[in-house]
Amino acid sequence: MSFKEKIKGIGGNASYEAKARVLREQLEAKIPAGLKLPPAILEDPPLDITRIPETCGLLTVQELAITELDATAVCQKIAAGELTAVEAVTAFGKRAAIAHQLTACLMDFFLDEGIKQAQQLDEYFQKEGKVIGPLHGLPISVKSHYPLKGTVGCGGFLVNMEISTEDCDMTSILRSLGAVFYVKTNQPQSVMHLESKSSYGRVLNPHNTNLTAGGSSGGESALVAMKGSCMGVGTDGGGSIRCPSAHCGIYGIRPSSRTTPTHGNLWYQHGQDGVFASTGPMCRSGRDMRLFLEAVLGANPSLRDPDVLPIPLKVPHLTQKKLRVGIMMHDGVVMPHPPTIRALNLVKEKLEASSEVEVVDYIPYDHDRGYSLIRELYYEDGGATVRRLLEEGGEDMHPLTEWVISPPHVKNHDAAQVWKLRHQRDDYRREYSDHWWSQNVDVIVCPPFQGTASPHDTTKYWSYTAIWNLLDYPGAVFPTGLVADPTVDIYQESPRPMSAADEYNISLYDAAIFKGAPVSLQTVSRRFNDGLVLAAQDVIERILQS
Amino acid sequence: MSFKEKIKGIGGNASYEAKARVLREQLEAKIPAGLKLPPAILEDPPLDITRIPETCGLLTVQELAITELDATAVCQKIAAGELTAVEAVTAFGKRAAIAHQLTACLMDFFLDEGIKQAQQLDEYFQKEGKVIGPLHGLPISVKSHYPLKGTVGCGGFLVNMEISTEDCDMTSILRSLGAVFYVKTNQPQSVMHLESKSSYGRVLNPHNTNLTAGGSSGGESALVAMKGSCMGVGTDGGGSIRCPSAHCGIYGIRPSSRTTPTHGNLWYQHGQDGVFASTGPMCRSGRDMRLFLEAVLGANPSLRDPDVLPIPLKVPHLTQKKLRVGIMMHDGVVMPHPPTIRALNLVKEKLEASSEVEVVDYIPYDHDRGYSLIRELYYEDGGATVRRLLEEGGEDMHPLTEWVISPPHVKNHDAAQVWKLRHQRDDYRREYSDHWWSQNVDVIVCPPFQGTASPHDTTKYWSYTAIWNLLDYPGAVFPTGLVADPTVDIYQESPRPMSAADEYNISLYDAAIFKGAPVSLQTVSRRFNDGLVLAAQDVIERILQS
Repeated sequence: MSFKEKIKGIGGNASYEAKARVLREQLEAKIPAGLKLPPAILEDPPLDITRIPETCGLLTVQELAITELDATAVCQKIAAGELTAVEAVTAFGKRAAIAHQLTACLMDFFLDEGIKQAQQLDEYFQKEGKVIGPLHGLPISVKSHYPLKGTVGCGGFLVNMEISTEDCDMTSILRSLGAVFYVKTNQPQSVMHLESKSSYGRVLNPHNTNLTAGGSSGGESALVAMKGSCMGVGTDGGGSIRCPSAHCGIYGIRPSSRTTPTHGNLWYQHGQDGVFASTGPMCRSGRDMRLFLEAVLGANPSLRDPDVLPIPLKVPHLTQKKLRVGIMMHDGVVMPHPPTIRALNLVKEKLEASSEVEVVDYIPYDHDRGYSLIRELYYEDGGATVRRLLEEGGEDMHPLTEWVISPPHVKNHDAAQVWKLRHQRDDYRREYSDHWWSQNVDVIVCPPFQGTASPHDTTKYWSYTAIWNLLDYPGAVFPTGLVADPTVDIYQESPRPMSAADEYNISLYDAAIFKGAPVSLQTVSRRFNDGLVLAAQDVIERILQS
Repeated sequence: MSFKEKIKGIGGNASYEAKARVLREQLEAKIPAGLKLPPAILEDPPLDITRIPETCGLLTVQELAITELDATAVCQKIAAGELTAVEAVTAFGKRAAIAHQLTACLMDFFLDEGIKQAQQLDEYFQKEGKVIGPLHGLPISVKSHYPLKGTVGCGGFLVNMEISTEDCDMTSILRSLGAVFYVKTNQPQSVMHLESKSSYGRVLNPHNTNLTAGGSSGGESALVAMKGSCMGVGTDGGGSIRCPSAHCGIYGIRPSSRTTPTHGNLWYQHGQDGVFASTGPMCRSGRDMRLFLEAVLGANPSLRDPDVLPIPLKVPHLTQKKLRVGIMMHDGVVMPHPPTIRALNLVKEKLEASSEVEVVDYIPYDHDRGYSLIRELYYEDGGATVRRLLEEGGEDMHPLTEWVISPPHVKNHDAAQVWKLRHQRDDYRREYSDHWWSQNVDVIVCPPFQGTASPHDTTKYWSYTAIWNLLDYPGAVFPTGLVADPTVDIYQESPRPMSAADEYNISLYDAAIFKGAPVSLQTVSRRFNDGLVLAAQDVIERILQS
């Protein structure tokens, strides 16, 4: 019986909740007894759980030290013979098990296989005296809808879960570069929420478990923030790398679409090509984003996938001319919450004080229209496919799934209506391009979200990331080092809503709720200027921290 | 009254034929009396009319000499001060007027404006002592659905004709590079026939007027073959540059889509993004294709159009390794007519005798499936838009328009069916990519069509070009120097049809009909290897002519 049949058959006519419980128990059973947290910790954890791996006593001092490293450091140490691949994956794997018990960040756990893979790499290194590739021995966590041979894969619903029989392009390439796999991470139903609740449970934000870790790559963001991984792989069709990275205080980039491999990913609307999801890294340093992209693009993914564009990553040296940075305080539709405004003001102040950059106010161009367009583009069939898949799997619809396929934004289209919609998309892109040039900026710094991480089940405005998906502008996020602070992050005067969405966002704000949430910002540039985004973000961060 | 209103109003409730007659008379009236051919020539022209410009007495010896030049030579002579822009456009413009009277290749004629533009360029050159751009003074003919300010533009139907109020991206860029405009060329109803009959008449093949000049850029191919232009601009969504170029014995390349500018072109299904039409040159030498592409890409079209991919043209030096050339004799569905098979055998023999290349037999991969897919992709609305536009314009449907929107290939789709179709497209592309690598070739040489140019109104199989549109593989065509010869191009034995389409193609063959038709071949490589196509075709041609 295939896993698919097994999943469909769980409990016969059992309720969805009963089926989901079986899945969660199957996963829990994969975590060795020696890595189980004591009930005392699980029963009453603090809101901020990021320190538990250090205090729970399950990791050695050496393991804790390894998990403090970023991916670049891990690769360097392994290549220098100072660390083995087995040590690396063991440390991150153990910490991942702890992270999962606290945040529900995983969908599969297979540390034993990871250790076997690592042993082979260590043997190769011993024998050949060199690494097999630029990611030799690096443990990489993988979002569930990337197939990885022999592990649980999920295309967003119960009905399209599988034990994958082969790698997708991305995991195959990462494997060839020397990466070691040990976990698959959680993602929401439909893979189209900016939160992450699935049959495997709800992913919690490690900095404040009352808040979401973001989505749809929320398993990754929680895991990386818990330091159960130093390099995760996410996908982003509306913010699914940037939002969770921002919410959890880590780094992530959504590359220009079709520059990185996506072929073979599990998905339920193949051929829906009105907007493309990108694949990219989620990690703990700016340099790690570059490490990942240079390694993956260096493997020439366009040679195996004719849909991949052979556009190299060019990271410019920003010394010859003054970088022009636009600051976008808000999108003209929804005002970010006070912590994000505080971070923007700080960045602006710091950049203005620097002689290295030129700062201008960036004016957004009709983001409301763009966001409506992309919402309509996501489900041109009016959500019929989603409803069918839920029914076929006997799966309850999550309220955020219902929201994402709801009219008036989403409606069924015939072919001529599909063309019309895509023509509107093309017009908007052209107009935006003209607008961009009129603003005289190289990059912009803007919110990645209308605030820090949200309370669970409340995320209903994606425009701060999704607008760049529609335009296909690359965007990266970075933690500012600030966290939401109820003593300072309060509205100075009663806010006046700019829109219904703004009114909703204001209603969500209560300074106390967001306590401790990381405040992140986003760096964006024009399509295919991915290298400029990375280089400029480095400069901006350096000035901000100076 | 706008031109659009005027067109719609011609003759009130007049028949389509009456409206079309008015358009043709308006165009005829633009040709000066001094450039009218004597009735004796027009009444009884020979089948091969390519020599008439030389013998009719309307062009001076110097003008005839200028029109023998290719575009590279024209640019070089102007840049060297050996030729003025006014002389160039005058010579080509006069010859274009003659060409039009014999082939119906134009939709607009405005030599006076071209001369004015040329005068300004000559003055610039005089004053500054340098050219304004790489195409300084080059007369370029433009297919009708490229808007060019102040001239007739046509999106394929009577109802979407216009006097354009601004340039599209391509003509704007060419203008900025120094090009001079003087004619717009004819194209078929719907811009989706591989022939060219419109309200402005039927374009004839200059080498044998019983045959089509090809389409949809058939006005260009006839004009360039008549030497009324040395550089034309066409579009190709299913063969519309390569087929007419092949039929008329000239050069043309369909670049990988979205690498050259298309924004602003007149079209009636904007947003239909299942396959993209490319824009490219039609000309009289291999080096002219390169001149055009290097000049246009050098203007960075992606900076104004966010849909253009910033992928540079890299023309490799093919000296370091042996070029692997696959010969595809047929596509497994329709066997080319004897003249084309003769040319393929000759190329194969010559290449095999050369030490410079390695020759292998290229096996096509399921072209029948691919061709069915692209036919379905062209009109995902089942042709409803086409029918509406014809009705709105009171325009009769041409039989080839009816054919192109006919079931079973064409049917109406809802959004989920559009996605499914595009997923099938993506699967085919991936499988084809794997297949390509299994064949171990750098480029292939294949027929550009299932024979030479066809008798009028018979062209119903596009797969020799359209398959590469579906795959987005760049393809160029070149004349072999052979022409159809009834004394040798006969079936050696009674052909056995491979398919219904083959049976139809065999039924069209009567050696006598095709007499004098140029025999051309096509060079194809993998997506984005446009520069390799150009470089390899140069090598292949050199070996063929040696």
